[in-house]
Amino acid sequence: MENFSEWFHNILEEAKIIDSRYPIKGMNIWLPYGFKIRKYALNIIRNLLDEDHDETLFPLLVPEEELAKEGIHVKGFEEEVYWVTHGGKKELNEKLAIRPTSETAIYPMFSLWVRSHIDLPIKLYQIVNTFRYETKHTRPLIRVREITTFKEAHTIHSSMEDCENQIKDAVKYYKQFFDALAIPYTISNRPSWDKFPGAEYTYAFDTIFPDGRTLQIGTVHNLGQTFAKTFDIKFENNEGKHEFAYQTCYGLSDRVIASLIAVHGDEKGLVLPPKVSPNQITIIPIIFKKGAEEVIAKAKEIKTRLQSSGLRVNIDDRDIRPGKKFFEIEQNGTPVRIEIGPRDLKNNQVVISRRDTFEKINFSLEDDINNFVHELLNKITNNLKEKSKKNLEEHIVEVDDIETIEKTVLDGNIVSIKWCGDDDCGKAIEEKTNLDILGETSKTDGECIYCGKKAKFNTLIAKTY
Amino acid sequence: MENFSEWFHNILEEAKIIDSRYPIKGMNIWLPYGFKIRKYALNIIRNLLDEDHDETLFPLLVPEEELAKEGIHVKGFEEEVYWVTHGGKKELNEKLAIRPTSETAIYPMFSLWVRSHIDLPIKLYQIVNTFRYETKHTRPLIRVREITTFKEAHTIHSSMEDCENQIKDAVKYYKQFFDALAIPYTISNRPSWDKFPGAEYTYAFDTIFPDGRTLQIGTVHNLGQTFAKTFDIKFENNEGKHEFAYQTCYGLSDRVIASLIAVHGDEKGLVLPPKVSPNQITIIPIIFKKGAEEVIAKAKEIKTRLQSSGLRVNIDDRDIRPGKKFFEIEQNGTPVRIEIGPRDLKNNQVVISRRDTFEKINFSLEDDINNFVHELLNKITNNLKEKSKKNLEEHIVEVDDIETIEKTVLDGNIVSIKWCGDDDCGKAIEEKTNLDILGETSKTDGECIYCGKKAKFNTLIAKTY
Repeated sequence: MENFSEWFHNILEEAKIIDSRYPIKGMNIWLPYGFKIRKYALNIIRNLLDEDHDETLFPLLVPEEELAKEGIHVKGFEEEVYWVTHGGKKELNEKLAIRPTSETAIYPMFSLWVRSHIDLPIKLYQIVNTFRYETKHTRPLIRVREITTFKEAHTIHSSMEDCENQIKDAVKYYKQFFDALAIPYTISNRPSWDKFPGAEYTYAFDTIFPDGRTLQIGTVHNLGQTFAKTFDIKFENNEGKHEFAYQTCYGLSDRVIASLIAVHGDEKGLVLPPKVSPNQITIIPIIFKKGAEEVIAKAKEIKTRLQSSGLRVNIDDRDIRPGKKFFEIEQNGTPVRIEIGPRDLKNNQVVISRRDTFEKINFSLEDDINNFVHELLNKITNNLKEKSKKNLEEHIVEVDDIETIEKTVLDGNIVSIKWCGDDDCGKAIEEKTNLDILGETSKTDGECIYCGKKAKFNTLIAKTY
Repeated sequence: MENFSEWFHNILEEAKIIDSRYPIKGMNIWLPYGFKIRKYALNIIRNLLDEDHDETLFPLLVPEEELAKEGIHVKGFEEEVYWVTHGGKKELNEKLAIRPTSETAIYPMFSLWVRSHIDLPIKLYQIVNTFRYETKHTRPLIRVREITTFKEAHTIHSSMEDCENQIKDAVKYYKQFFDALAIPYTISNRPSWDKFPGAEYTYAFDTIFPDGRTLQIGTVHNLGQTFAKTFDIKFENNEGKHEFAYQTCYGLSDRVIASLIAVHGDEKGLVLPPKVSPNQITIIPIIFKKGAEEVIAKAKEIKTRLQSSGLRVNIDDRDIRPGKKFFEIEQNGTPVRIEIGPRDLKNNQVVISRRDTFEKINFSLEDDINNFVHELLNKITNNLKEKSKKNLEEHIVEVDDIETIEKTVLDGNIVSIKWCGDDDCGKAIEEKTNLDILGETSKTDGECIYCGKKAKFNTLIAKTY
């Protein structure tokens, strides 16, 4: 991919994922094909979270008074909040913020709901649109003003220990989610100046794009008692004493879709993980004048058979050249293509092609096609997972000389350095390299790359979106 | 139900459907139980529309310039639009409206998408939140400022005839949807002064509430070429000439959920149609010290068996009195309750109770319980449908004397009158009776109830929400 940015922009349009011509910059339209990919991705995260979370829906608008309550939090968002000031022709008594995230919409209600330790834990999530008045250059699915797909979970606990365990669970769910989409990730503990405003600490998932830049694709925050104190969320503990509650929150966004497009795509277009592909198999009948009916009948029979095993299958029987159909199916990222022509019919076989490797298989219809295709889709998922994981791993480079960080990153890598963990030192590294510290990944010893004092953490540094 | 309004308010709270204590009036929270009902209801309409519509997602905010383009339309909404004027601390160059409905967000894009008659028809829908700055008294799910569940479909056609056919299809889909929820309805052609701003005509679905007032629960609009002309949506027709497109739109809202609660509920609480009940069957093990394990094991076995046939089943094995469980299950509207105690176990039977009729059945476990329960759920749906339909029919009363309309309506009825169809005459009837004309239901002859001239239409008149 010569120019990733251009490729990404084009594929969104050509594969009909997003229309970015809406008259407000940074606000885009999900087209039918893109909407389906989004739907199947959301199904995966819903199935995971529904195991022990409840889905809810809170209002979009937040009274100024509530938004302003948590000082650190509001400071993190004040430049980015859209304000509603008028209803009809009247000026409102109080300005209303369009949620940039929903802590300040949800936590005043938590204060009403939580009474006793037996009410806890509470684990909720919602999937909503949120808004950020971005002044930087916007890009569909990556940096937008309307985040159309903001999955935010909010939990309340009766101890810091339960919070810590919830953080582990959240990380586990997100790993499962990204694995299902074959999106590779690093997990790092964000530096203090980059954690969620109001959080004790923030774990972030980042992935690497073909241009070597990293994208934050998920975050998990331990909020401790900060918001509980602000919003007066108290519970009566075992001993009958009132205590502030402990909280976590964690979120995903449209960037998940950006990543699965960017990470797997190639020159021919999308390469979709089977779980989220609108069509998992497209059947193409190769039709000549003679024997057309039989070929189409067979194609339909195969479609019905595959569908009966729960697969998403379509037949492309449009009256256009097969070459044009192949082009489109490859562009759309459909994992498996099945061709059947008169000669195949005679030999009782079909030709099965993989989108990820372009491998072609002559498959005898005497064998169990359902079984074969299910296994093939698993193979494709695993291949995408391994390939993209390997790519990420190959692009994490350990560097012990501050002068070579920037060049290594600009060559398309994430750099791992040893760092003392001191804020001033970390900020100095960022400034010197003109890059961002993603955060700590593990403990270490040795010397800090910048100040030479005792290093505490292996730390990732990258060019970020 | 002595006081429906109070009952409705209480049941939303007691059955944990909605929390209406959010700090902005008219904006409410979907609680987990309510959210599930909403989800299952949306599944039904999605399944219906997905047959030949594509789901999409358009931005929430609309530039003032676009909203203002269609004069009649904007006039219908100008008192109700929320305006965003600031991003962060900056005043925006152009005010942004929060969509009250999405014609003005979607149709500028249609203008870019539609080129030729071969692109048509296009049939899209989206399920989004929309906003109305209501100055009237708000009520959760009925009159709100954030409509959290606005299902709006938008179609484009190459002839008025295709439009008319689409209107028929839309009415058909909505009938199927309301039938699945056992919500009875009238369909009427709204009078000119009450049609959708910008539409040629509007068909509306109304249902009757226990207090005798009607609620508009769905609308279907033939937009003709009005919006196409405003937003320049043109196509090249068969003969190579450019022509303005023909459009329809149709919508549903949170009011569907309000209706299924209001129409079926009773003094004990919700009575949910099986298709949308979060639990379709709740199993209660009746436990004594002796034999508790065996009873619970049997309950689990029955749960697994029922679940395997696709039913939503839970076991309530909390350590509280069965009476309290029965109270809650009835309040939550779960269609079927299964009790099993030590004596039942001995007799290899369970007791199955219906929420709608309170009928109890001793069921032998030697028979096929899956089959029995599936049939029972169908019976419950049909009973709810027939009962509520009968109730609606009994409350539509033909009246031929203008003086008795108001009293008949205030007794809890919808009144059917003969009307000449003249606007001035219709408005005079509304004013005299202090009621609303819902619209024409069929052609007729005889005399207009007000002016005495030749009547054209049987027309419904009611006290509306």
